[in-house]
Amino acid sequence: MKRTSHISELREIIAIEKSRGRRIALIPTMGYLHRGHLALVEQAKQRGALIVLSIFVNPLQFGPNEDYTSYPRDLEKDAHLVETAGVDVLFHPTSEEMYPLPMVTYVEVGQLDAVLCGANRPGHFRGVATVVSKLFHIVQPDLAFFGQKDYQQYLIIRRMVGDLNLPIEVCPVPIVRDFDGLALSSRNVFLTSEQRQEALILSQSLNEAEKLLRAGERSARVLETRIKEKITNESQGVIDYVEVREAQNLSEVTRIENPVLVALAVRFGSTRLIDNKVMEVNPLV
Amino acid sequence: MKRTSHISELREIIAIEKSRGRRIALIPTMGYLHRGHLALVEQAKQRGALIVLSIFVNPLQFGPNEDYTSYPRDLEKDAHLVETAGVDVLFHPTSEEMYPLPMVTYVEVGQLDAVLCGANRPGHFRGVATVVSKLFHIVQPDLAFFGQKDYQQYLIIRRMVGDLNLPIEVCPVPIVRDFDGLALSSRNVFLTSEQRQEALILSQSLNEAEKLLRAGERSARVLETRIKEKITNESQGVIDYVEVREAQNLSEVTRIENPVLVALAVRFGSTRLIDNKVMEVNPLV
Repeated sequence: MKRTSHISELREIIAIEKSRGRRIALIPTMGYLHRGHLALVEQAKQRGALIVLSIFVNPLQFGPNEDYTSYPRDLEKDAHLVETAGVDVLFHPTSEEMYPLPMVTYVEVGQLDAVLCGANRPGHFRGVATVVSKLFHIVQPDLAFFGQKDYQQYLIIRRMVGDLNLPIEVCPVPIVRDFDGLALSSRNVFLTSEQRQEALILSQSLNEAEKLLRAGERSARVLETRIKEKITNESQGVIDYVEVREAQNLSEVTRIENPVLVALAVRFGSTRLIDNKVMEVNPLV
Repeated sequence: MKRTSHISELREIIAIEKSRGRRIALIPTMGYLHRGHLALVEQAKQRGALIVLSIFVNPLQFGPNEDYTSYPRDLEKDAHLVETAGVDVLFHPTSEEMYPLPMVTYVEVGQLDAVLCGANRPGHFRGVATVVSKLFHIVQPDLAFFGQKDYQQYLIIRRMVGDLNLPIEVCPVPIVRDFDGLALSSRNVFLTSEQRQEALILSQSLNEAEKLLRAGERSARVLETRIKEKITNESQGVIDYVEVREAQNLSEVTRIENPVLVALAVRFGSTRLIDNKVMEVNPLV
């Protein structure tokens, strides 16, 4: 595996591979990698492309009171993990390499960025779209892989790619969960053992909502209320949001007919966790 | 010369040329071409690249009360002109080809877009940066050529390319003027012969400001005032702005020490003309 923190060196490596006709896959991450990230690598390997994995904790997507400085980091452990997993190139730039000048240019994906996590984290998705746009221009991948735990992020990147004609296939990869159902997240490391146990309520409540839907419930509000009640009654979690929205474009839903995204964000102590599930009225058709 | 209005066909043409190791030059235009545009083609030819010239009157960069519908168009004349000039590929997409869905993604270049034409045309440079970003992703050029008559646009694109790590060299090309000094513009066609004669005051007042600077005047306000007085006293032109700003970043100037951009926008009837000149205190050093 090659490693570099320099854009120019990365571009040279990629240019050589492209000149050999090799396709390029990009996996953008913030590091502190877990099996969810490794599932992205697995998917990329199946496409036969050269795999570039980036690790960059992007200051642009953190709000002033968010956890940029405390976000977990362990570059050497990550490097060992991805080398074993079969990544070809690890790109781990510094902030100075990514932002040598004060940024004045931003990419904004309207509408999709105003709801769910966007409503609670102003500027977050602008920071995400901008840094992903930069990484796309640096790596010029044919394929890019994003985990569906950040489902809204995946939709935003997919729409950005379409609206701006980026010649990139955006590949979603399903959420990877721990043995007990907790969605894997770098931030899980901050949970106390009690909080971790309580956080199981997130996936459990999503599963219960799906059972309700399959049993015939079609009201988005009823599903949201049931999830909120369950979280509030059975844990100390403080709800940021629980929402049912159209899976294709995050627009509002009253009566469920098309595939929906059921998404939630809940705080346990100072740790904010997200989870979601895409549900269909009739998954067998 | 190849011609296409389809993104997919254009991409195929370019992919073949790239696979032969050919560099690609992009010249984005809104058509109704004049010798100013042909100077861009000349510059591109000197770089030995395959020349792609796009003609697209971009609705996104026109305000609701601006001249999008009346903007002059003559595709067949343009096609003949650029074929003779040595353009390799003419790309003339429809609005539906460029914007098949309602756009929700925008590229904004802050600070630089808030002054001069940006102050008078809200949303204009957001529309420019967004469509140029799309064209860059479609064509993936190595070089892109922009005329310095739209000096602010050139600075904005150059900054966008830097901030977003686009692997493109942005090449500015000097203003081309008519025999009498009027800066060439597709909008000149709208001037009556009296207005056209009066509009000579624009280049004349810029030249006079430069003489003042060379004679030792260092006050930006004095230069601006002299230009405004000259335009107001000697024509019916209605001034949008006359401003002296740092040529590198458009920041404010009081005492002139570094190269400055002297830029103006003036309306003659319903036709809004712009002109500018970059001036240095001591151009011989």
